[in-house]
Amino acid sequence: MDKIERFGVSMSAELLALFDERIREKGYATRSEAIRDIVRDYLVEGEWEDHLGEVVGTVTIVYDHHTHELGEALTDLQHGSHEAVICATHVHLDAHNCLETVVLRGTSDLVRRIADRLISTRGVKHGKLVCTTTGQRIS
Amino acid sequence: MDKIERFGVSMSAELLALFDERIREKGYATRSEAIRDIVRDYLVEGEWEDHLGEVVGTVTIVYDHHTHELGEALTDLQHGSHEAVICATHVHLDAHNCLETVVLRGTSDLVRRIADRLISTRGVKHGKLVCTTTGQRIS
Amino acid sequence: MDKIERFGVSMSAELLALFDERIREKGYATRSEAIRDIVRDYLVEGEWEDHLGEVVGTVTIVYDHHTHELGEALTDLQHGSHEAVICATHVHLDAHNCLETVVLRGTSDLVRRIADRLISTRGVKHGKLVCTTTGQRIS
Amino acid sequence: MDKIERFGVSMSAELLALFDERIREKGYATRSEAIRDIVRDYLVEGEWEDHLGEVVGTVTIVYDHHTHELGEALTDLQHGSHEAVICATHVHLDAHNCLETVVLRGTSDLVRRIADRLISTRGVKHGKLVCTTTGQRIS
Repeated sequence: MDKIERFGVSMSAELLALFDERIREKGYATRSEAIRDIVRDYLVEGEWEDHLGEVVGTVTIVYDHHTHELGEALTDLQHGSHEAVICATHVHLDAHNCLETVVLRGTSDLVRRIADRLISTRGVKHGKLVCTTTGQRIS
Repeated sequence: MDKIERFGVSMSAELLALFDERIREKGYATRSEAIRDIVRDYLVEGEWEDHLGEVVGTVTIVYDHHTHELGEALTDLQHGSHEAVICATHVHLDAHNCLETVVLRGTSDLVRRIADRLISTRGVKHGKLVCTTTGQRIS
Repeated sequence: MDKIERFGVSMSAELLALFDERIREKGYATRSEAIRDIVRDYLVEGEWEDHLGEVVGTVTIVYDHHTHELGEALTDLQHGSHEAVICATHVHLDAHNCLETVVLRGTSDLVRRIADRLISTRGVKHGKLVCTTTGQRIS
Repeated sequence: MDKIERFGVSMSAELLALFDERIREKGYATRSEAIRDIVRDYLVEGEWEDHLGEVVGTVTIVYDHHTHELGEALTDLQHGSHEAVICATHVHLDAHNCLETVVLRGTSDLVRRIADRLISTRGVKHGKLVCTTTGQRIS
């Protein structure tokens, strides 16, 4: 387990009152927890700017599964990058529309390139990449 | 099947050359496909600003599964919102770290509120919400 | 002058070391200053979500001043909203290209609407709105 | 003057109707103008990712001018980077609060570094950088 350090933050009473109000709305139990979350998010950004380290990304795509050969194209793409694709989850939104989340792991350049290919595939209506972390450096 | 319309776009030759270069890098097969994607993304934003319609969101969270009672807290939260939670996928990143993607469906306010609760849970290291669509209006 | 409060934040030593490294790169002198900045940014977002309060926005537009009647159109637009436009600064980037920054003040809806009109004017090549604050509540 | 090219875009009637509705709200006169704007924004992003070319940035900062020596610190910072600072505009928001917009020109790394320094200066309440263009390649 990591050693825990404690440090002081000074802030005007007015600013602190506004912050407390906002984090209560967001569901945080303590100020420390909210500040740790903001700090971690700031650091995950840094991991993605670094071209050598390993990151994790989740791609969400929405598409019409009736589109000719789209399902196959997406599966082929994922198999072609199998060393980076951890898993995919498929949701049937209605008779036509599917959602798929694909979890990817590798350098930020590789994860972005695979995400770009999935999102730009013809027939994919909407796609977004979430940049997250392996959690190894972020404690 | 929807009726397809075709319209003309005028652009300087120089601007068009730069656009063609960029979308080739991103993996688009045609200009139409790239422009449709940009347009759909622009519209999904609008769906999220609308408080009445139904949207779909994917939450990605990374956490240490050794954190006391965190797994249970996350499961309870999802069960408490079962009408909006479609499914969750769990990935074991290493001996300590887990990643979970949760697919949510409902009004944008409801999806955001559940996402805020999941992300602000003590022990969750990093969390992000992707705002996407049911695909019903976006063709 | 506001009363200053001080509170403690606990964080793993590892996370704190990464944070210290990142804020040093960004040029912060102390942790408190970095955390106050992150907190203020979080609160300015909240001011913009509130439809009643007053906010400040800066619009930056780049355009070719040879475009027929564009300068006039932009000036007319600003005069038509004179109660919200505080000032505009004009920069000659080269023989053709101009940059203009326009400072706006009002409700977030009004500031956004004027910014949308400026940015969508034919001949404006690029435009962006910065959402900031009057500074009155944010200390 | 650049040569103008015209190309066709195909889209479902339903998607096109939603797009027309959204761009009307934003104030666009024609589809071509809206699409050119979206394309230019996509390209300006690319200019900022390129480390060699020249870009333009506008920094907006809000601060309390009573903060001890802040005005001087900000002026010193700008003089120390005078080759990149084109101009600064100062607005008196009220008896305490000032807003300043600073227009910067240089490589994206240089513009970001100066912006980071301005925003992280102690006493600056809020600061944001807008990434824009010299307009030379974007027609």
